[in-house]
Amino acid sequence: MGDMRGLKILSTLAEDGHLTVELVEENLPPPTGHELLIRVEATPINPSDLGLLLGPADVENADYGDGRIVATMPDSARRAMAARVGQALAVGNEGAGMVVAAGDAAQAQALLGKRVSCVPGGMFAQYRLVDARAVMALPDGASAEEGASAFVNPMTALGFVETMRREGHEAIVHTAAASNLGQMLVRIAREDGIPLVNIVRSQAQAATLEALGAEHVLDSSRADFHDRLLAAIEATGATIAFDAIGGGTLVGQILHGMEQALAKGAAYSRYGSDRLKQAYIYGALDTTPTVLTRSFGFSWNVGGWLLTPFLQRAGAETVERMRRRVRDNLTTTFASPYKARLSLQDVLTRDAVLTYNARRTGEKYLIVPNG
Amino acid sequence: MGDMRGLKILSTLAEDGHLTVELVEENLPPPTGHELLIRVEATPINPSDLGLLLGPADVENADYGDGRIVATMPDSARRAMAARVGQALAVGNEGAGMVVAAGDAAQAQALLGKRVSCVPGGMFAQYRLVDARAVMALPDGASAEEGASAFVNPMTALGFVETMRREGHEAIVHTAAASNLGQMLVRIAREDGIPLVNIVRSQAQAATLEALGAEHVLDSSRADFHDRLLAAIEATGATIAFDAIGGGTLVGQILHGMEQALAKGAAYSRYGSDRLKQAYIYGALDTTPTVLTRSFGFSWNVGGWLLTPFLQRAGAETVERMRRRVRDNLTTTFASPYKARLSLQDVLTRDAVLTYNARRTGEKYLIVPNG
Repeated sequence: MGDMRGLKILSTLAEDGHLTVELVEENLPPPTGHELLIRVEATPINPSDLGLLLGPADVENADYGDGRIVATMPDSARRAMAARVGQALAVGNEGAGMVVAAGDAAQAQALLGKRVSCVPGGMFAQYRLVDARAVMALPDGASAEEGASAFVNPMTALGFVETMRREGHEAIVHTAAASNLGQMLVRIAREDGIPLVNIVRSQAQAATLEALGAEHVLDSSRADFHDRLLAAIEATGATIAFDAIGGGTLVGQILHGMEQALAKGAAYSRYGSDRLKQAYIYGALDTTPTVLTRSFGFSWNVGGWLLTPFLQRAGAETVERMRRRVRDNLTTTFASPYKARLSLQDVLTRDAVLTYNARRTGEKYLIVPNG
Repeated sequence: MGDMRGLKILSTLAEDGHLTVELVEENLPPPTGHELLIRVEATPINPSDLGLLLGPADVENADYGDGRIVATMPDSARRAMAARVGQALAVGNEGAGMVVAAGDAAQAQALLGKRVSCVPGGMFAQYRLVDARAVMALPDGASAEEGASAFVNPMTALGFVETMRREGHEAIVHTAAASNLGQMLVRIAREDGIPLVNIVRSQAQAATLEALGAEHVLDSSRADFHDRLLAAIEATGATIAFDAIGGGTLVGQILHGMEQALAKGAAYSRYGSDRLKQAYIYGALDTTPTVLTRSFGFSWNVGGWLLTPFLQRAGAETVERMRRRVRDNLTTTFASPYKARLSLQDVLTRDAVLTYNARRTGEKYLIVPNG
C-alpha cells in the first residue's frame, strides 16, 4: 500500500499576531508496527479544541477565504502564546473512525476493519495515524457518531468521581453543570448514589438538569443563590468542587459555603474547620482572575485539574475500568447529542465559526471529515 | 499541695460586637497523671495570637481600664467570628517556664524542677497545666527567653522544608521573608543547601536578609521586581512558595514566574507545563482577596498551610527529628530576638497594644507573666 492523501486543519500563529486556520493536504505513509491508519468519520468540537483552533482571536472581523481564516490575536493573548508562534498545529482531540490499514503488530492487525474511538489529537482530518495500544474498539453496531466523544467528556466526568473518592470526599459541587459533561455527571452520580450539587446560570439550564432527575440544582442568577448553596452543601456534605468557569468569585463562594456548613455545631477555631475543602478549576469559561476571599479558614486548596495528568496518576487498572464503563454505556450514560454536523470545509466558514465558537452550554458540534 | 492561684488573659466577643480582653484570676488544681503545672516565665506575642486576642477590633478607639480593654469589632469580622461569641478564650500559643508540680506518671515526675518549652495555648497566664508528653525539656542552662519561641516559628520554618521535600520540590519562594520566621528559614536553607528566593517589601528588609547571607533577596516595591523574580526562579528552579501575605496578586505573580521559567525551551502546550506549581498561604498580613490571573496553565495548586495539621500528617518520627534540631540550635539557627518585654498588665495598656498590634516585620514582643 502506498501513501494515503487527505485533508486536515492546521492552526498557525505568526510572529505578527495573525492567526491562520487552514485546510491543507497531507500524505500519510503506510502504518508500521503498532500503528493504525484511521479514516476519521466523526470528531466533536470540544471547548478544549477551540482554545487551540481559535483561542481569543477576533473571529468577528477575520478574513474568511476558501478553506482559510486569517484573524488577529489580541496582544494580551499573544504574550501567553509566545511558545506556539510559527508552529502549524493540528487540532481535534478525539473522534471515531474505521481502521483502514494496520502495522504488523498483532494488536494492530486485530483491529483492521474495526471501528474505533481514540484521543490522539489532530483528529480534525480525513485520515490519522494512531497507536493501536491507545484506541478503544467500539461495540459491534455502534455508530461513529456514538463513539466520537467517548474520551474527553466521559473520562473527565468519571475522573471527577475517582478524584472525589481518592481524596476522601463524599459529595461533589459542579459548576456550569448544564454542559454535556455536566449532564453525564448527573447520570453517573445517580447511578453511583453520589450526592451532587449542580450550579447553573439560568432557569432554562436548571430545568434541563431537573428533567434528568438531578436533585440539587441551583441557579446562580437568583437572589437567593447563596442561601440555597449553603443549604445544598449542608444537605449533601460536599467538600470538593469542580469548576469549569475559573474567573470571578464563585469558587470562593463555594469554599465559603463548605466552611459554613462544617462550622455548624463545631467548636470555634480561628483557623477554621480542619476538614480540607477542595476546589478544582478544569475550564476557563471566564478568563478573568479567580478572586478568593479566604473566608474559609486554612484547610483549603484550589488547583487546576486536567484529564491527562489525572489518568497518568490513576494508573492503568483504573483507566481500563473507566474505559470499560464508557464502552458499555455509550448510548445511555455517556451519550452526546449534537446540535449540527459540519464538514471540514464548513468549519472554516464565518457562519459556522460564529456559531460553534459561541460555546453555548449544551450545544455541541460534530465534524464529519469524510462526509 | 492545694490549688494554685494565678492571673491569665481572656478574650471574649459579646453578641453586641464588643470585644473584652481582661486579666482574670483563676484557680489551678494540683496536676494528676501526666499533667504538669508550669510557672510561665516567657511567652511571645505571635501574629497568630493577635488574631485571637484582638482580631480586627478597633483598638485605636477602645476603652482601656484597669486590666481590661473593651473594643468594637467591625461588622464584617463579627459574621466570620459568630462561632466564638460568648466564649471567654484563653490566649497565647507557646512559651517556656518551670515545672513547679507534676502528676504521678513517671514521665511527668521526671520533669519536676526542669525548665520546659510548650505549645498548649492559653500561655498568656502566670500558671498553666500542660501534658508532660507534649513538652520539650530545655537544654541545661537555657533561659526561658531562649526557649519561649521554640515551637511556632522554628517548627513552621522546618515544616516548609519538610513540605518541599515530601512534595518533590527543590527550591522555595518565601514572602514577607524578613520576618523572624523568614530569618530562621534563611539560616535553615543555608545549612541544608536549599535554594531560597526571599521576597521582602523594602530596601531595609532586603539589607537585613543580605546581612544574614541570603543569596536571592527581592524587594517587591522596586519597578524591576517582576523581572528579578523571574530570574531568581529560573536560577533556583523553585516550584513551591510559602506566602504570609495572602491578599492581592503576589501569589499569582509567583506562580506565573514559575510557569514562565518552566516554559523556557519546552514544547508549546496550551495547558501549560505539566510540572506542578504549588503555593501555600500560611498567613494573612493582607486580608483582602487573593487574586489569581491563572496565567500559569493547569498544573497549579494554591492552598492553606497550618502547622498543626502538617505535624499530624508528618508523623511522630519526623516531628521528633524536627524538635531535636530546634533544641540543639536554640541560640543560633532558631534564636528569636525581642523588641521589648511586657508584663501581663502591660499587654492591656493602650501604648503597648498600639505598638505590638502594628505587627512590624521583625519586631517581636515577649510577655513575662511572673516578672
